[in-house]
Amino acid sequence: MKANTEEKKWNLQQNRRDSKLQAAKDKGLAKRVPSDRTIELLETVLTPEDKVCIEGNNQKQADFLSECLSQCNNDVLNNLHILQSVLALPSHIDIFEKGIASKVDFSFSGPQALRLAKLVQQQKIQIGSIHTYLELYGRYFIDLIPNVCLITAHSADADGNLYTGPNTEDTPAIVEATAFKSGIVIAQVNELVDSVPRVDIPADWVDFFIVAPRPNYIEPLFTRDPAQITEVQILMAMMVIKGIYAPYQIKRLNHGIGFNTAAIELLLPTYGAELNLKGKICTNWALNPHPTMIPAIESGFVDSIHSFGSEVGMDEYIQNRPDVFFTGKDGSMRSNRAFSQTAGLYACDLFIGSTLQIDLQGNSSTATVDRIAGFGGAPNMGSDPHGRRHSSYAYLKAGQEAADGRVVKGRKLVVQMVETYREHMDSVFVEELDAWQLQEKMGSDFPPIMIYGDDVTHIVTEEGIANLLLCRTPEEREQAIRGVAGYTPVGMQRDHEKVKELRQRGIIQRPEDIGVDASKATRDLLAAKSVKDLVKWSNGTYAPPSRFRNW
Amino acid sequence: MKANTEEKKWNLQQNRRDSKLQAAKDKGLAKRVPSDRTIELLETVLTPEDKVCIEGNNQKQADFLSECLSQCNNDVLNNLHILQSVLALPSHIDIFEKGIASKVDFSFSGPQALRLAKLVQQQKIQIGSIHTYLELYGRYFIDLIPNVCLITAHSADADGNLYTGPNTEDTPAIVEATAFKSGIVIAQVNELVDSVPRVDIPADWVDFFIVAPRPNYIEPLFTRDPAQITEVQILMAMMVIKGIYAPYQIKRLNHGIGFNTAAIELLLPTYGAELNLKGKICTNWALNPHPTMIPAIESGFVDSIHSFGSEVGMDEYIQNRPDVFFTGKDGSMRSNRAFSQTAGLYACDLFIGSTLQIDLQGNSSTATVDRIAGFGGAPNMGSDPHGRRHSSYAYLKAGQEAADGRVVKGRKLVVQMVETYREHMDSVFVEELDAWQLQEKMGSDFPPIMIYGDDVTHIVTEEGIANLLLCRTPEEREQAIRGVAGYTPVGMQRDHEKVKELRQRGIIQRPEDIGVDASKATRDLLAAKSVKDLVKWSNGTYAPPSRFRNW
Repeated sequence: MKANTEEKKWNLQQNRRDSKLQAAKDKGLAKRVPSDRTIELLETVLTPEDKVCIEGNNQKQADFLSECLSQCNNDVLNNLHILQSVLALPSHIDIFEKGIASKVDFSFSGPQALRLAKLVQQQKIQIGSIHTYLELYGRYFIDLIPNVCLITAHSADADGNLYTGPNTEDTPAIVEATAFKSGIVIAQVNELVDSVPRVDIPADWVDFFIVAPRPNYIEPLFTRDPAQITEVQILMAMMVIKGIYAPYQIKRLNHGIGFNTAAIELLLPTYGAELNLKGKICTNWALNPHPTMIPAIESGFVDSIHSFGSEVGMDEYIQNRPDVFFTGKDGSMRSNRAFSQTAGLYACDLFIGSTLQIDLQGNSSTATVDRIAGFGGAPNMGSDPHGRRHSSYAYLKAGQEAADGRVVKGRKLVVQMVETYREHMDSVFVEELDAWQLQEKMGSDFPPIMIYGDDVTHIVTEEGIANLLLCRTPEEREQAIRGVAGYTPVGMQRDHEKVKELRQRGIIQRPEDIGVDASKATRDLLAAKSVKDLVKWSNGTYAPPSRFRNW
Repeated sequence: MKANTEEKKWNLQQNRRDSKLQAAKDKGLAKRVPSDRTIELLETVLTPEDKVCIEGNNQKQADFLSECLSQCNNDVLNNLHILQSVLALPSHIDIFEKGIASKVDFSFSGPQALRLAKLVQQQKIQIGSIHTYLELYGRYFIDLIPNVCLITAHSADADGNLYTGPNTEDTPAIVEATAFKSGIVIAQVNELVDSVPRVDIPADWVDFFIVAPRPNYIEPLFTRDPAQITEVQILMAMMVIKGIYAPYQIKRLNHGIGFNTAAIELLLPTYGAELNLKGKICTNWALNPHPTMIPAIESGFVDSIHSFGSEVGMDEYIQNRPDVFFTGKDGSMRSNRAFSQTAGLYACDLFIGSTLQIDLQGNSSTATVDRIAGFGGAPNMGSDPHGRRHSSYAYLKAGQEAADGRVVKGRKLVVQMVETYREHMDSVFVEELDAWQLQEKMGSDFPPIMIYGDDVTHIVTEEGIANLLLCRTPEEREQAIRGVAGYTPVGMQRDHEKVKELRQRGIIQRPEDIGVDASKATRDLLAAKSVKDLVKWSNGTYAPPSRFRNW
């Protein structure tokens, strides 16, 4: 029966791991490694072609470990395959420029998008694929299993139990994939303590830890200064609240990053309360702790927020609001990007975000021709999850609007909120996305579309709301989009008769159609007009980073 | 600016938790609770209307805690809202019959589907929603946050560090949602040990643990006896391997449960090897450790398997194959249902499963009129993830086949593999799913469809393969389905001319069209013909449960 008589080894990965750990031991490297021996440690326990996961997302960074890796000898370490949520720091790119690594699979590269594009041109880097966060984590358990991970935590005890503090983020996903498939887990920590405030990662999942010479870098990515919110953004926010959140009774949601959604957040305690929507909309969130949420929280709009990560300056405020945020017994937040992305995908009824370009099918993209930016989490939140089976008022109503015959399933609401013109008077609405040019340049299988037209349900501009669920043909869809595209070339080419008909059918709604008084769209409507106002709302517990303080 | 001057408390949940813990302390209940005081503990730390998550899925069960809960005094505890992956045990239903709980949100109720349907008729239970596993976990962080969870682990140390053993399953997701939102975590364990083999759940996430009077129940759900595999199933398995896995180069995949997919697994080392497919297909899996995978693993077909849970009898085999399975430093498997479902959704190129009914749009369902069974994980795996952004050969090819114009995205392959007639000569192919009647009976928003027709890419029967990706109209789709529906009434009503055309276009493929010789579809082709053969393949390390031993 059994043809294969050749003796096969089944624990090669464990043996490899054991011999690497032995090599470190032989050099006198114990579990706690002095920071000045970090490069030596990396050169000892990594080998060429290893898959190495560097913790680095849009917030916290294992920056010391990444810098040490970039300083390794490329005769010893080369052709590594880097796995990483976000390519954010110069050292992340240095690793490739120096030939230490040659391949990358990642999700987002915002700050390093230009340098990354150059490296691709110079053929110094091979991009495996660009992912959403959640699909990258998924692959960590299937075909991108890390051999080594370089993570970061706030503190460690002598045994190596790790406390991440509020920025738990990607750490549990990365460590689990590595520690349980014969990989090696290396952590940088800010400090060594007698006893960690809580155990975020158990010591026996960790092989080495290093007290880094400086605290790990954290980016305050989700802070938007209310002072910069414009009246056009306030008008659009009013339309979203009255024209979408109220009729669909949106309770469970995620907001993308940016001033548009910050305007919505700051209008909840004023315009939202005026419309008597407290407790009826925006109660349960998958969201980073946006400072612009403070007035809505303080006004009692919010029941719960589960977060992907924390936000600089928000820690004390969060600690004082445990009924709202997820916190540990130590009092500080526990975030978790994998679970929050799962919640954003499957448990939220609405995602709203912004974009740089929208085409006539409703496909949208933030790609520009010279930058390889990637996706992050938006495509995951901004997609209709066909695997969802539970209903809700919003999900059912949207499903009914979309159905031609009997209603088989609901629909997630995916809203794009854009001004028709963005900076430099570039039209957001285009006949063809730049993504197609970028696809050709990158030689990738698909254009880097952020959200597919099939998934978008509403487009909101200063001109009105287009409800794409109600469109019955591609032609109607095109005219619905043109009909809110304002004075852009795409908007000017609308079929006026058809747009009129779409408006009569409620597919296009102007502010006045939903009773939004544009003359009231002033900054007076914002619950907070400045970062200082946010601090006041928080009773002084929100501590904005210095770059946001001008008082 | 700040209108709301009323003093609001922000730590009510923590206070509630603290007072419950104090009440337990006042009764002399320490962290380790004697098993004969479990009911007292539950009556002390639970309160009416609490959301209580009972760990119980299709494998391991916190059965002792569930029984104790069912024995609580319903004057003290009533109207609980139970959250649970699977309603599997009599005690799960007893809790509702006795009025201790009145509402449930869950994923699957296979074994208790009939009793559940009766309870609904008697209005003794209110069903919140029926979910997939992953969306239920998502809601644990949004609007179904547990106040208390009752979980199970293999062992605990004196501090309450928990070792789950190979059946980690849902535990990390449940505990994280509870422990970090001021909830109470109660664990039953099989034994108290001086030191746990590894820490699966850190002690400081756990409030109470109880050494149960007997080990927790585990169901051997994924064991299929090769002796029961039929030649029709072998023929279909040959078609799947040669007609789908080979041309699409399916490397990353998930198999549903059942004899059809077991036949595929047992054909890999024989038919698959004959076709020279080793290393080219079926290398990376999101899968429970099916015993019928042993011959494929031993033959070197498989690179890695990440598992939702373990399988009874497979522990020693897994322990000896760490290059394939995810294991901890203690040697035993670490499973994780949340991550494996994520991987199944986003990192796999194909899902293949079976069903009880398929309609002419390709919608499929396992619902029958008197059973409320639910979904489990199939809709999550068996759906096209619109949030996916990375490509692969299979994903691109399927996307190209489906595209009318330019290719914007790929497609996940979702295959239904069914014999045209199932037991009692019921036709699998129907004009209308029973799900519609069940929807009416349950008063739910949608019919309980397992996999939507829009997501299905291929239907495989003994008559052939229908490739729905290539269909361009609903009419073609209907004829493609009729064209493989055999001698069922649905099949007999095919338009013979149209079916002929679809076959010429390769939309319908008969066995002979893809070079599958039906005369070779005999049991001789199975790499193992019995459970005993599987034990032999495993060199005696697979220890099947006694019900599967007949030697």
